[in-house]
Amino acid sequence: MREVAIVGAGMTRFGELWKYSLRDLFVEAARGALESAGADRLDSIYVGNMSGGQFVGQEHLGPLCADHLGMAGVAAARVESACASGGVALRLAYLDVASGASDLVLAAGVEKMNDGADVTAVLATASDQENEVYHGITFPGLYAMIARAHMAAFGTTEEDLAWVSVKNHRHGAKNPNAQFRREVTVEEVMASSPVAAPLRLLHCSPVTDGAAAVLLCPLSEAKKYTDRPVKIRGSGFATSTLTLADRENPAVLDAVQLAAERAYKAAGVGPKDIQVAEVHDCFSIAEICCIEALGFADRGRGGQAARSGMTALGGKIPVNTSGGLKSKGHPVGTTGVAQAIEIFEQLRGDAGERQANGARIGLTQNMGGSGASSVVHIYERGF
Amino acid sequence: MREVAIVGAGMTRFGELWKYSLRDLFVEAARGALESAGADRLDSIYVGNMSGGQFVGQEHLGPLCADHLGMAGVAAARVESACASGGVALRLAYLDVASGASDLVLAAGVEKMNDGADVTAVLATASDQENEVYHGITFPGLYAMIARAHMAAFGTTEEDLAWVSVKNHRHGAKNPNAQFRREVTVEEVMASSPVAAPLRLLHCSPVTDGAAAVLLCPLSEAKKYTDRPVKIRGSGFATSTLTLADRENPAVLDAVQLAAERAYKAAGVGPKDIQVAEVHDCFSIAEICCIEALGFADRGRGGQAARSGMTALGGKIPVNTSGGLKSKGHPVGTTGVAQAIEIFEQLRGDAGERQANGARIGLTQNMGGSGASSVVHIYERGF
Repeated sequence: MREVAIVGAGMTRFGELWKYSLRDLFVEAARGALESAGADRLDSIYVGNMSGGQFVGQEHLGPLCADHLGMAGVAAARVESACASGGVALRLAYLDVASGASDLVLAAGVEKMNDGADVTAVLATASDQENEVYHGITFPGLYAMIARAHMAAFGTTEEDLAWVSVKNHRHGAKNPNAQFRREVTVEEVMASSPVAAPLRLLHCSPVTDGAAAVLLCPLSEAKKYTDRPVKIRGSGFATSTLTLADRENPAVLDAVQLAAERAYKAAGVGPKDIQVAEVHDCFSIAEICCIEALGFADRGRGGQAARSGMTALGGKIPVNTSGGLKSKGHPVGTTGVAQAIEIFEQLRGDAGERQANGARIGLTQNMGGSGASSVVHIYERGF
Repeated sequence: MREVAIVGAGMTRFGELWKYSLRDLFVEAARGALESAGADRLDSIYVGNMSGGQFVGQEHLGPLCADHLGMAGVAAARVESACASGGVALRLAYLDVASGASDLVLAAGVEKMNDGADVTAVLATASDQENEVYHGITFPGLYAMIARAHMAAFGTTEEDLAWVSVKNHRHGAKNPNAQFRREVTVEEVMASSPVAAPLRLLHCSPVTDGAAAVLLCPLSEAKKYTDRPVKIRGSGFATSTLTLADRENPAVLDAVQLAAERAYKAAGVGPKDIQVAEVHDCFSIAEICCIEALGFADRGRGGQAARSGMTALGGKIPVNTSGGLKSKGHPVGTTGVAQAIEIFEQLRGDAGERQANGARIGLTQNMGGSGASSVVHIYERGF
């Protein structure tokens, strides 16, 4: 396999972008990625998108995106793994370059969620239609059950959950592309409206429009496009049961653990080598479970990480310096690619006020459903 | 890149399968593929599916399919390019093995179309929402315009169109998995109900439930699984404008032509080397345009191919020996993989009454929308 680098990145700001259609969002992000690398051609495009069909009545995003970028002809396909769609797009772009089939590939994510659809119902189609949706369950309910299980098993508290949101809003306040650029306090989180106990509004990521794109090429050719490439050192992808109730322990995200093992093995590193990470905090409990599955905290101890400062900027391993899904926003099919952009910027030293000093190795972890699919990538400064 | 072989295949019968859910269909096809090769593990799964979200309220098919196959944990993602989803799944599985990342990969397609959804409206989301759907256009209308353009430019007749259906029903009558196992006459086709002039009911592929799966591994390891592997000699993927009206000539399928050029180049062969082919006859006019774009007939002469017997079993280049989409059926995300199975069987000499004698090199061409995306694969007997 050829070594692969990220050489360019572009994204829209995240938020309720009523003036943008899905195609506008994609084009802005994709153009940004190409321009940042001075590239004017592509061999292929992978578009991560959860549900263009249900959100805006548009499937078949490959040719739509290629065409509106002015590149009709290019190989272009949509890939979907619910909220892990962007991470899967990145992985497939990576394999395309690694295989030798393509030399210049765009991994993109796009989601237009604010356009009139019943968002909670559409998102629920990422859970099991027969075993979960049919009985009325939605994602806040699924993650509330995960939170309850974690609390029962490990003594995690509502205040632990709140600290994840506080930390991520602190980070997001420094991110010009974030949907919510303001800090929140533990008291505000714990007084916000209940959604599905023990989860409250300020434990939940928002409904977001946005797109992101990164440009990949063989590491050996990266210097044509940038003097500061970032190498993709490993990629891991795994699944678990789609139905939460079918898992042995709902507080353990086994797909995340398996994807991480695969990525660590491919990269030849371990959790202790990771200096900065973006993880999938669709709900505050998710960040807690994910950092345990990734090996950043011992099982059951994830709840203390945000409160102790370990995962804050300046801590041992800053997690979600972008603001995470909670504060930056969560356009579901885009998130995995936006995570890669944050690490790309961190490893290049371009993260401004959010800079995790001196980071050379970073990680992203993107997740679909209640943890039924997960993708982990490990990156290293390539200059 | 490593050389890649198909070593196993499985499919459900095609039709209105009211007793099967989407997951049932996938599992039957996937188990068939694994059992045919004596394989009991997988590294990854690619599931081609156009619109589980809109048809049956189920996105996130990767983990659903892996789990119901008894393989939760395996890397598994859905890929979508409208009716070319299956072809794209095959291509990505091919790249995964070719890259060296995976050694045993399932390329599958599944679509459950008969479940109460407004099928024509769902399919229309594969065309351009803003430029086509909004104005009320659907796929029969788009292909009717392609037919009109072909007739105007090249003198193609309604009888030419009818002969495609007659030929494909003749082939499909010999296929135990086909939705329609009966022959039709030119007179019957030309007297069938108008759908969108000049297209009539018997020019249109049906609404179909079904799944198909093929098992891929490095050619060097193929003999572990079968004594008759089929090598994938080339893969090409291309797009065109999503909006039909944006193309210079609607009677010319430029994405098909470009995908074919790429596949021929990768395989080091040309149209004259192809001995049997499955092409995307979603409407009879599509087969005519496709065989021109693939180089089997000169531009404008595709209309005479079925009538003359050139593309019939026993002719110079048998096309759609399976019955094609018209007679075998067209579960949209499945079709590209089912095409590969027909060629796999043909090159192994397993096609029974449909056998194209002595074929060593075959081709499949799968297409999305009104030709906005197309995937071409070229296969060679590997034993």
